[in-house]
Amino acid sequence: MDGKDVKLLGNKTSQYVWRIVWALKLKGIEFEFIEEDLFNKSPLLLEMNPVHKLIPVLIHGGKPICESLIILEYIDDTWKHNPILPKDPLQRAYARFWAKLADEKLLEGSGIAFFNRGKEQARGVEMMAEVLPLLEREIAKKKFFGGETIGYVDIVIGWFSYWLQYSQEFGDFKVMDSAKYPSIASWMNNILEVSVIKENLPPPDVILKASQKFRTMVLAMTSSKTL
Amino acid sequence: MDGKDVKLLGNKTSQYVWRIVWALKLKGIEFEFIEEDLFNKSPLLLEMNPVHKLIPVLIHGGKPICESLIILEYIDDTWKHNPILPKDPLQRAYARFWAKLADEKLLEGSGIAFFNRGKEQARGVEMMAEVLPLLEREIAKKKFFGGETIGYVDIVIGWFSYWLQYSQEFGDFKVMDSAKYPSIASWMNNILEVSVIKENLPPPDVILKASQKFRTMVLAMTSSKTL
Repeated sequence: MDGKDVKLLGNKTSQYVWRIVWALKLKGIEFEFIEEDLFNKSPLLLEMNPVHKLIPVLIHGGKPICESLIILEYIDDTWKHNPILPKDPLQRAYARFWAKLADEKLLEGSGIAFFNRGKEQARGVEMMAEVLPLLEREIAKKKFFGGETIGYVDIVIGWFSYWLQYSQEFGDFKVMDSAKYPSIASWMNNILEVSVIKENLPPPDVILKASQKFRTMVLAMTSSKTL
Repeated sequence: MDGKDVKLLGNKTSQYVWRIVWALKLKGIEFEFIEEDLFNKSPLLLEMNPVHKLIPVLIHGGKPICESLIILEYIDDTWKHNPILPKDPLQRAYARFWAKLADEKLLEGSGIAFFNRGKEQARGVEMMAEVLPLLEREIAKKKFFGGETIGYVDIVIGWFSYWLQYSQEFGDFKVMDSAKYPSIASWMNNILEVSVIKENLPPPDVILKASQKFRTMVLAMTSSKTL
């Protein structure tokens, strides 16, 4: 620890937030988690992330760092022990490539699939389905994307091993198939056995309650727009 | 140099490609530029970037690195002299933040404005207009985003100082206003005085010819879709 105060502005339901929690816990960094009400954002959040007004924001010694992938890099740049990104420049580049792709297709796609019906939902599912075969090939014969221990890509895609079941159930879509993607299915189990992940997940009822509330609202808003 | 062979698959008209050229030149890395025909992509490009099939791709010792911002990080991680990113973790995070925002709003917006008409074009202009006041404040009283010498953000946004005039003229839109954004206007001049930039820009006729060809094609395609 460098003795500076660490705060995380977040929300317990957000996949973008838990990756930061996992990274901080992996490094053994003490921090204060400040829960944000996304329907009534705090003055602190608006001050700390005036451009996007989004969580997560890491505040370290009073300075804000925004955007979850950038926060992960910051954490790894600041506290060098228990490295998250590989040391080798090429492997770093590949980790960044997979993390970006997974966020753009898998996480983005799951949001679209969850918050829509019909054609737009199908588009979200399609985005996810595009990237799953690539990840299946990438993770084949490995315990983690990072190798024997979890690393950057595992932290970024980690949400998939836990949130997906709820998204699929309550969003009424299906994209993951263990028979089709056996290596991803094994990886999902491996991830959930890592203590820092297992011990830092939102309770199902928190996800369910928030997901249902959000989805009902968004569907109501988008239906009234299209009608 | 590390003695390994460096190749860049690119296209002279692309803003995403020149940033890589500038970074390599800043580091004094010798490389072979391989011009890709975007209407007839080479087997090498499809092999080296099978996921996105896009330029730029840096090939170093036979290994491909894709996505321009990731390539810039790779270059900085591999050849440590003449650093591109700041050393301080917080300043690194801020540089990554501005670069990402500028790519998502300014460069993405300019493409939308250039390749569309009417409402969609206005949306692209609006994306750019959103980020310009933020950049104006960020660059105020500084020579470069990087401080006294050019750095990561300057390399990423550098295209704006040169390509914009052609985009605006041939795309028939207007977003930059020197009276409104005097600090950005000064920065645009400063950037074009840096020898590594000044000496590495595509000739106007190359941009014009390709831009017109592309725009006519895209507009024809999108018109036929909407009609």
